[in-house]
Amino acid sequence: MLVKKINNVPANPVDMEGAEKVRKRLLLSEADEALNFKMRLFEVEPDGFSPYHTHDYEHEVIILEGDGELRGKDKQFPLHAGDVVLVVPNEEHQFKNTGKRMFKFFCLIPIKKF
Amino acid sequence: MLVKKINNVPANPVDMEGAEKVRKRLLLSEADEALNFKMRLFEVEPDGFSPYHTHDYEHEVIILEGDGELRGKDKQFPLHAGDVVLVVPNEEHQFKNTGKRMFKFFCLIPIKKF
Repeated sequence: MLVKKINNVPANPVDMEGAEKVRKRLLLSEADEALNFKMRLFEVEPDGFSPYHTHDYEHEVIILEGDGELRGKDKQFPLHAGDVVLVVPNEEHQFKNTGKRMFKFFCLIPIKKF
Repeated sequence: MLVKKINNVPANPVDMEGAEKVRKRLLLSEADEALNFKMRLFEVEPDGFSPYHTHDYEHEVIILEGDGELRGKDKQFPLHAGDVVLVVPNEEHQFKNTGKRMFKFFCLIPIKKF
């Protein structure tokens, strides 16, 4: 068993095209002997966003703090601490900070696809 | 895509043998078209605990609030908000509330095993 403090895991800038003002902490992954899914924490500055994109695997998301929006192809959802999100494979999606504070969310993805 | 507010998902008592003062909210599961892993939130009252047990699948855990302890076979770890935990398959483990407030944690498990 393994316990980590989030703040002890480095926050690295996300340099994917279409991402702005986002950092990622890779909390649990294959390097920790995670078997089926990876746990990441994304930290989005005010006016920041993840890429608007799609892929063949799902996201399971927990909003930790701040205020944001999930943008889909035909709809948007406001997001706040205490919300959880499922994005299924091949759905277009983007996470945006719509507030004045940091917007932080856990995003879990399956390992097998990578 | 799907967004849920945690507080809108029912908290049901955990009636497993060895569990005391624990409720569970099943946040994402096959019923939501989750494909690879389930997301649950456990809410443990002061003096409460999950069973001390083992199983052939892993846990990925995020401590949301409160103070607790992860008990293993030969060691214990204090747990606080901002900690994440990996329990690998076949490790004996138990989560306990050691504080005076509710102890809440997300616990994710693979779907395929059930």
